[in-house]
Amino acid sequence: MSGCPFHFTRRGFLSIAGAAAALGAGLGAGHFLGDKGNGLSGSAASEAFWGSHQSGIITPAQNHTYFAAFDLVTNKRDDVIKLLQNWTSATSRMTQGLTAVQENSEGGDSGDTQGLPPSRLTVTFGFGAGMFSKEGTDRYGLAARRPEALVDMPVFAGDQLVSERTGGDVSVQACADDPQVAFHAVRQLVRLAEGIAQIRWTQVGFIANPTDNRTARNLMGFKDGTGNPDTRNSALMDQFVWVGQEGPEWMRGGSYVVARRARIALEHWDKMKTSFQEQIIGREKKSGAPLGKKDEFDKGDLDAVDADGNLLIPENSHLRLATAASNKGAQILRRSYSYNDGVSYTAERWPPWRQGMEYDAGLLFMCYQRDPRTGFIQIFDKMSKFDMMGQFVTHIGGGLFACPSGVHQGEFIGQRLFQAV
Amino acid sequence: MSGCPFHFTRRGFLSIAGAAAALGAGLGAGHFLGDKGNGLSGSAASEAFWGSHQSGIITPAQNHTYFAAFDLVTNKRDDVIKLLQNWTSATSRMTQGLTAVQENSEGGDSGDTQGLPPSRLTVTFGFGAGMFSKEGTDRYGLAARRPEALVDMPVFAGDQLVSERTGGDVSVQACADDPQVAFHAVRQLVRLAEGIAQIRWTQVGFIANPTDNRTARNLMGFKDGTGNPDTRNSALMDQFVWVGQEGPEWMRGGSYVVARRARIALEHWDKMKTSFQEQIIGREKKSGAPLGKKDEFDKGDLDAVDADGNLLIPENSHLRLATAASNKGAQILRRSYSYNDGVSYTAERWPPWRQGMEYDAGLLFMCYQRDPRTGFIQIFDKMSKFDMMGQFVTHIGGGLFACPSGVHQGEFIGQRLFQAV
Repeated sequence: MSGCPFHFTRRGFLSIAGAAAALGAGLGAGHFLGDKGNGLSGSAASEAFWGSHQSGIITPAQNHTYFAAFDLVTNKRDDVIKLLQNWTSATSRMTQGLTAVQENSEGGDSGDTQGLPPSRLTVTFGFGAGMFSKEGTDRYGLAARRPEALVDMPVFAGDQLVSERTGGDVSVQACADDPQVAFHAVRQLVRLAEGIAQIRWTQVGFIANPTDNRTARNLMGFKDGTGNPDTRNSALMDQFVWVGQEGPEWMRGGSYVVARRARIALEHWDKMKTSFQEQIIGREKKSGAPLGKKDEFDKGDLDAVDADGNLLIPENSHLRLATAASNKGAQILRRSYSYNDGVSYTAERWPPWRQGMEYDAGLLFMCYQRDPRTGFIQIFDKMSKFDMMGQFVTHIGGGLFACPSGVHQGEFIGQRLFQAV
Repeated sequence: MSGCPFHFTRRGFLSIAGAAAALGAGLGAGHFLGDKGNGLSGSAASEAFWGSHQSGIITPAQNHTYFAAFDLVTNKRDDVIKLLQNWTSATSRMTQGLTAVQENSEGGDSGDTQGLPPSRLTVTFGFGAGMFSKEGTDRYGLAARRPEALVDMPVFAGDQLVSERTGGDVSVQACADDPQVAFHAVRQLVRLAEGIAQIRWTQVGFIANPTDNRTARNLMGFKDGTGNPDTRNSALMDQFVWVGQEGPEWMRGGSYVVARRARIALEHWDKMKTSFQEQIIGREKKSGAPLGKKDEFDKGDLDAVDADGNLLIPENSHLRLATAASNKGAQILRRSYSYNDGVSYTAERWPPWRQGMEYDAGLLFMCYQRDPRTGFIQIFDKMSKFDMMGQFVTHIGGGLFACPSGVHQGEFIGQRLFQAV
């Protein structure tokens, strides 16, 4: 039997990120998650890899994600550099529809994306605390370079994080319009990491495809992401998403990602009346409008009251607690995906004290911000205590990762972290 | 705050199943999984619900599935009838893009598919052994009506089925081009089943979107479904898929589905040379052609030998063991989906004796057949012992279900099973 030399390419396309941004300009602000970002076939398009920022942050959200957190299992700084070099090369290729490694030999790529388009694949890398020191050991001579903003995450009210789904030294967020393309990317990176990094936890996620191509609904049935800052407003992005001069040089133009696996008690949620759900969210379910308003993108009136003098948007509603006006102007860029891991046996210790198979489904909450201390942590500290939605949502795991600036051709991801000061 | 009466519809379309079949006629035979079945936007289209056969069997495979097996938790025959009536009504509506129940009141639908197209949703129902008797009890007076073909599945070589992922009294296979639409359908059925049926196990799955719109590759990187009988050949379907006069009246025009959750050791598979993978499958990876042939749909030559007299398609290759010529002409209609449930901690008891996080990913193998005794069981008995692929695949769970004939308007699914003889 012939060896069948194995060299193929997926259909490559020039990046249309620029065109995509232009085409998107006619749409209203804030509906970040729904925009496909281009008028062409979403899956045929590719996203640029090289640039000042990593892609996958303000990139219009693709329909699928595979998020993976890795433990670094080497003590050698050079191993980590080699890994990041290989990952950079592989990612620059895969995002353009090529195989992970350039070769005509066998075994270089799992091959399951042959015949698939680039599907707007992006891969976004982040560094956790363990990159800088682990169990008190400065493995790579980077301890002094840990950014102040890469804090140890506080424990929030209601947190039920399990260690097998929490933390990690490096994060990889692969997003694509085809789930196989996203998984394929991580799978090739895992192969390139052998002996240097191992998967610690992963989460698969998806976003639905609304016909109006705008804000998608999450599994609670509400539009998700309406309140996001407009990603086409670079001043807003500089203010809330990208690290500026306050950060170390290698983080400038980068961002911090908070990921949380939030299981939603859908069985309970589905038993609530729509009007009660709307009080919890602070928005109408159908239109997505703030209570008392008509359009999804109307600004909520936090002072409006009904005939009895009760606030239209309740004190402990999600909207009120999350909005910038309630958080000293703080904003984060949400980039969440629904997840659906089937069912698992669950014993509930609160009413209705049920035991049985329950959906293991909910939200892979992800958000990007310039500084988590004035972003997610500030906003979620209050929400974790007061948000009525917390009665239906349990945070199971997650992590905080510093996503370095983008890379230019010839560099590798995070290179300036490893360079002499 | 207003109650906000909650009545909406998803965008409905006339079924274009007929047009889809016509448009598909120009394509080669057998590439069942890749065809979208229509030249229009796949997700905007809807599939017919009423008909002689249930949809979701020979329907061109949608991109996503949510498969759920239920335990019946009632002892009342009337409860089961009521459940099937409600499920029939809800499914007939949801497949056409409507809410599960017709109502203007609150709480009738989780609402997370508002704004989503029908996405070619199909829901296919099946009855397990527990419908007829459970733990020796004839709960619904149906024990005498259990079809002979609904056998107790034998234990195959290498089976590692766990009870939490195996069996069930009723099966529901929801398929759609949007994962949220498939999950939504099952979620509404679960709500309608309260007190009558509970989820036992579920599995989420997906199929990639090849640019040529033909056979998709599974996670092993090989095209999956090439050898299927042509679903447009009604004589073949009558011969291999649909139950005929040999079955009870309520099963005529129905089919039997075997579902198996097959975890694939992708870490190991990815380390094998392509040429070795090809020997295991019996096909070229890139083209999908049988070894020694050029085109995916060429018929494999089981007698062909190389210069040394060795069989081109090895004795223990997947193709040789699965092909009709090796199985007294037996054929099944594969309708498999890849699954990706992230990673889980796995201790391997065979080389390389590794412990750690491994992909919990693989194949939700599903196949339809006229009789499982001459279909899956006959074929898989030999494969489970000899197929080299078994070194990389572990069956974790699954079930066998009798899928009744289709329903006509005014009937409910399985109605004739419950009618007096």
